[in-house]
Amino acid sequence: MENGTMATMSTPAVVSYSDPDSSPGSGFSLILLSKSNPVFGCYMFWTSLLVMKMLLMSLLTARQRMKTKTFANPEDVRGGLEVRFGDPNVERVRRAHRNDLENVLPFILMSLAYVATGPNPLTARLLIRIGASARLLHTVVYAVIPVPQPARGLAFLTTFAITFFEAGYVFVCCLKYI
Amino acid sequence: MENGTMATMSTPAVVSYSDPDSSPGSGFSLILLSKSNPVFGCYMFWTSLLVMKMLLMSLLTARQRMKTKTFANPEDVRGGLEVRFGDPNVERVRRAHRNDLENVLPFILMSLAYVATGPNPLTARLLIRIGASARLLHTVVYAVIPVPQPARGLAFLTTFAITFFEAGYVFVCCLKYI
Amino acid sequence: MENGTMATMSTPAVVSYSDPDSSPGSGFSLILLSKSNPVFGCYMFWTSLLVMKMLLMSLLTARQRMKTKTFANPEDVRGGLEVRFGDPNVERVRRAHRNDLENVLPFILMSLAYVATGPNPLTARLLIRIGASARLLHTVVYAVIPVPQPARGLAFLTTFAITFFEAGYVFVCCLKYI
Repeated sequence: MENGTMATMSTPAVVSYSDPDSSPGSGFSLILLSKSNPVFGCYMFWTSLLVMKMLLMSLLTARQRMKTKTFANPEDVRGGLEVRFGDPNVERVRRAHRNDLENVLPFILMSLAYVATGPNPLTARLLIRIGASARLLHTVVYAVIPVPQPARGLAFLTTFAITFFEAGYVFVCCLKYI
Repeated sequence: MENGTMATMSTPAVVSYSDPDSSPGSGFSLILLSKSNPVFGCYMFWTSLLVMKMLLMSLLTARQRMKTKTFANPEDVRGGLEVRFGDPNVERVRRAHRNDLENVLPFILMSLAYVATGPNPLTARLLIRIGASARLLHTVVYAVIPVPQPARGLAFLTTFAITFFEAGYVFVCCLKYI
Repeated sequence: MENGTMATMSTPAVVSYSDPDSSPGSGFSLILLSKSNPVFGCYMFWTSLLVMKMLLMSLLTARQRMKTKTFANPEDVRGGLEVRFGDPNVERVRRAHRNDLENVLPFILMSLAYVATGPNPLTARLLIRIGASARLLHTVVYAVIPVPQPARGLAFLTTFAITFFEAGYVFVCCLKYI
């Protein structure tokens, strides 16, 4: 802080703003994308879990490649082996990993925009928790211990529906900025 | 707001800051990543559309899998069918989906950083609108109604060029923070 | 700024806030996700480089497709050629590109959340620089000039470990918002 504002703002103050669109009585609210917003904190917590889970998919793939000696690059092959493709155990983990790219990354991106619209905190945190947990479960029933359907289908649809809801919410909220 | 600032800031005020790098005359500007910035609102609107479009790719793939009875997992197969791969209709949608991962996700991430640099609002909103619309078109001509080239190529190149421009803009803006 | 605050805040001032969770002595800090935060500037700079690199993968793939006349779509084929799959040169670039989706996008997303927690600026900038540089190197040794292992493995593990560390850091920081 510089010149002139020091006198009035010499004590720590939570920066806040009043949304010009909100009702006059709402007063000050938090900056939505800051760690002082508990919804953003919740978002960050579950994002960290999902990213760690996604990174572990690479290790799961590597384990299956070692186990089945299926290596896709000549420089990875040792001891007279040839490059191989299409081992079902490797491909299962790779499909699970690709499914994460198709669903977890949009969920993380969409939840960020959703949090930035300032949704109801209880709803937002519930959606983030359920959406992220369902993807953790999805990996377990797809790539770790394959179980019969509809386990995977239900886990998939849960996060799918939540991401879609968040996108619809943001769509309506930001329609005026089209 | 607490102690001491209450007297001067007792009325709701849009929180704003003046970028120390900007010219002295620029006065106060908005927090860039907040819903009170119309450029960020525009970004959120088109992000929601792109994410919904990407989610629909999963449903398109599922429809093609049902139609052609091409299932990649043993647990998805019923009634004496075997797992199958490589059906051209399924693979076309999957290529379109993968192309989205390769281009839509970078576009969404890069546009966010671009908006955060505080670009010219008119330019920024134009780029976001065109870039997102081109990807919607890309899906139509690739996976819904395959049409001859150069339709897909042009749609691809439009968003590609815009993402590249945004990246170059951010690169130059943030060069001092290397 | 409106009514009443004009008098005291007539000079440009960096907007700042004191995190209610931080120690009383910490005074004012920057808005973490704004261009006035050098760590966020560093994040944006390297994000722009990584996105440009990822976009170039598409051009590398196109070059290999032209060279080896391996086109995956009937509408891309001209002059009596047929669609072809599985050319090793094309597949190598495609594997490198997919590896980027699996690692660069999580790195970009996770670093954003990491920056938003307000980490030590020196550490944060170091991690971002090293993590991004390792991925640039990864592409060179995988898709441009294939070299024997462990070059690719080391480049992969560097960014992998940094993303994991960032995720762990955010996990601990935001545990209270679970």
